[in-house]
Order: sequence, then C-alpha cells, then structure tokens
Amino acid sequence: MHRTRVRVVEDALDANNTLARANRVDFDRAGVRVLNLMSAPGAGKTTLLERLLAEDLDGLRVGVLEGDVQGSFDADRLSAMHVPVTQLNTDPGFGGECHLDANMVRSAIPALPLDEIDLLVIENVGNLVCPAEFRVGEDVRAMVCSVTEGEDKPLKYPLMFRTCELVIINKIDLLPHLDFDVDRLLDNLDQVNPGVERMLVSARTGEGVEALRDWVVREPAPA
Amino acid sequence: MHRTRVRVVEDALDANNTLARANRVDFDRAGVRVLNLMSAPGAGKTTLLERLLAEDLDGLRVGVLEGDVQGSFDADRLSAMHVPVTQLNTDPGFGGECHLDANMVRSAIPALPLDEIDLLVIENVGNLVCPAEFRVGEDVRAMVCSVTEGEDKPLKYPLMFRTCELVIINKIDLLPHLDFDVDRLLDNLDQVNPGVERMLVSARTGEGVEALRDWVVREPAPA
Repeated sequence: MHRTRVRVVEDALDANNTLARANRVDFDRAGVRVLNLMSAPGAGKTTLLERLLAEDLDGLRVGVLEGDVQGSFDADRLSAMHVPVTQLNTDPGFGGECHLDANMVRSAIPALPLDEIDLLVIENVGNLVCPAEFRVGEDVRAMVCSVTEGEDKPLKYPLMFRTCELVIINKIDLLPHLDFDVDRLLDNLDQVNPGVERMLVSARTGEGVEALRDWVVREPAPA
Repeated sequence: MHRTRVRVVEDALDANNTLARANRVDFDRAGVRVLNLMSAPGAGKTTLLERLLAEDLDGLRVGVLEGDVQGSFDADRLSAMHVPVTQLNTDPGFGGECHLDANMVRSAIPALPLDEIDLLVIENVGNLVCPAEFRVGEDVRAMVCSVTEGEDKPLKYPLMFRTCELVIINKIDLLPHLDFDVDRLLDNLDQVNPGVERMLVSARTGEGVEALRDWVVREPAPA
C-alpha cells in the first residue's frame, strides 16, 4: 500500500514537472524571470515584498502572483505598492491544496501581465513541506526563515532549505529578545545546503533589505 | 480535471475517516484520550509540551506521538521529560507527507504504550493546512498560534482554526517587541470559530501555562 502511494506521488510529480517546463517556456518567451518565494506561515514574505517593492529596483518591473488557500489579504496589501498583483487561490478549485503546483500556476498565466513585467514573484502558500516538492516553472527559489521559528528548521524541513538558491533569515530585529543562536541556524543550514547564499534581514525595520534588493536586481536577471 | 481531483480528495478523506474511527475504538478500549496538537512550523509546540510535562498533572500519565517529516529532534527533547515518546516520520514510508493521517497513526499504535498512559498527545507536522483535514482518531484538537505569525492567520487558514477546540496563543513574552494587536487576532479568530476557547501563554517564560495544565487535566479527561 505504501509502495502504491509512493508511486502515485512520483507520477504526480512527473506530470507537475512537464507542466512546469511548459510554464517556463511561456515565461522565457515573454522575457520574464520568475522567483518562487516560500516560507512557513507568518515568516514575513509579504512584509518583505512590501519593503522590496519600495526600493529603487533599477527599472526592473515586478509583478506578483499571490498564492493562498483562500482570501486575498496579501494581494490587497501588495496592490498598494503599485505593482500588478494576481491572486491564485488553491481553494476550492484545487481542493484547498497547501502549496502551489505547476498546473495552478499554468491556469493563472492568462491573467498575468507578462508584457508589462520583467520579474514575476510567486508568493507561495505558507508551508515548509509541499511547496518545495512542486516546481512551478521558476528560474530561482528563495525562502524566508524567521528567527522566531527556531534553529532546527533546516534539519526538520531539509528539502525546502536544500532546493533554494537563497535563504533569507528574517525578523533579526527580534534577536535581542530571543534565545536564538544565529550561528547554530547557519551550521544547520550548511548541513543540508552547504554554502547556499543567505542574508540576514528585518522586514520590519528594513535592515538588510538593500542586499535583497541587489540580489533581486542581479540574480533572476531579465532574459 | 478539477472535478476529478476534488473527487479523489473526497475519497481519500472518506478512507481516512474510516481509519480514524478504528483508531478511536482502539484508544477508547485502552481508556486513552487523545489530543491532536497542531501549529505552523516553529510556533512552539515542543517547548510548550516541555513546560506542560514539567507541571503537576494530578497523576495524569501522558505519552507523546511525535510527527515529523524526518528526524527525531523533538522526540529527543521530550524524552528528557521522562514520558514515553514515540516517533512517527512521514518520510520515506509515507511519501514525505506534510501532515499525519489516520493510516500513519494506525501504523504507530502497536508501538504506543497505551496501557501505561491516560492521555496521548499527538504532535502533528508543522503546517496550518493539511493537518486540519485529516482526523487521526483524536478526542480533541488544540492548535498553537504564535504572535510572531501575524493577526491574519485565522482568516488565511480558517479550517485549522475552525476545527480546534482550543487555540493557544504563544510567545506573548514578545508582545512588547512586536507590532501585534491581540484584539485583532481574537476578532479574526471569532470570525472563523466564534467563542472557541483560547488562552495566552509564553512557553518560554511559563506565563499562562498553568491554564493549559488545567485544561489538559480537565478537558480530554480519561475515560
């Protein structure tokens, strides 16, 4: 029974990868680079995007695809930043999934203003497990890990930390009030993804956001 | 295609409910009450359990079933509390699932010391979506919501907040350092689960843990 189950998972992931490649072709054709942004619930993805979008991005035109189980709370927040924001809900059409997959993103492509943007940021559903398993056609993956979540998270959710090109360690303004050892987190991170690029930021105070701005302008560069 | 997908989800949940009832029969026969404890990653479930298990529980004998994708970090921490702890990993046997389901818990029952405990606490995988969808044979559900996660979480993950009998609001020691409005969180909570029992705690300082101790001794009472 477990064997069958694993097989079903493999088939689903194969189908997903096929659709992810199709998405990638569409994004490449439009000259749009895609960043898949992931984290646990409440790690600060949206606040970080608000900070980032307020920066001077050297003319980089950014659009956001907001993934949520339901509602449009984050999309409403981000639309105040004067960038095109598209909402993608996993409930009910997709069974209330805990992650975005390539098929869901594919269904959203006709609603995306690909001609008007250079970079699409896909804000995934808050979850450290399944979003890491499903490619959606992105060029690059970043995850936000908040210092309030504990130093053990890379070891407990290794796939998420392993499949990212950037780990953004957020809420560092709270460090003086926590029993949190940044070096231990970084050691744990290096155990699962040695040398992965990482940066320490506070979306609340803006500390470190400039480094993220530089990375976004440089890394997922327009084609 | 979406229709088929929803149907598959419904069938899976039906099978799950059948197995959850079978688990419940086994737990009832052994006179063991079961608490399903859920939260986002890093909300503080394990630290809270450490605090709780250090309290005088009026002779209530507690066992813990630790659900994690992989590893046994939390089980190792809790075994220092001198209670029986059983590890249940969702990877690889169960495909790396982001939640526990009734079948996984069923597979763990032979390893549980049901004759030696009155209350089994099942610490679910850290995730605010799928754990809420899968009954595992529990009598009662509690979730931990940390104030660092933002006030919007009940609205963004309503099923989780709606299907719990208790909402534990953790990390209140950090409130002076956050832009967090407790009343707004409670208003949002009442929108999805009006009047649900809630308590404010700090697993770090121990504040409010006595109320949780009283609830645990009283609510999921031994049969």
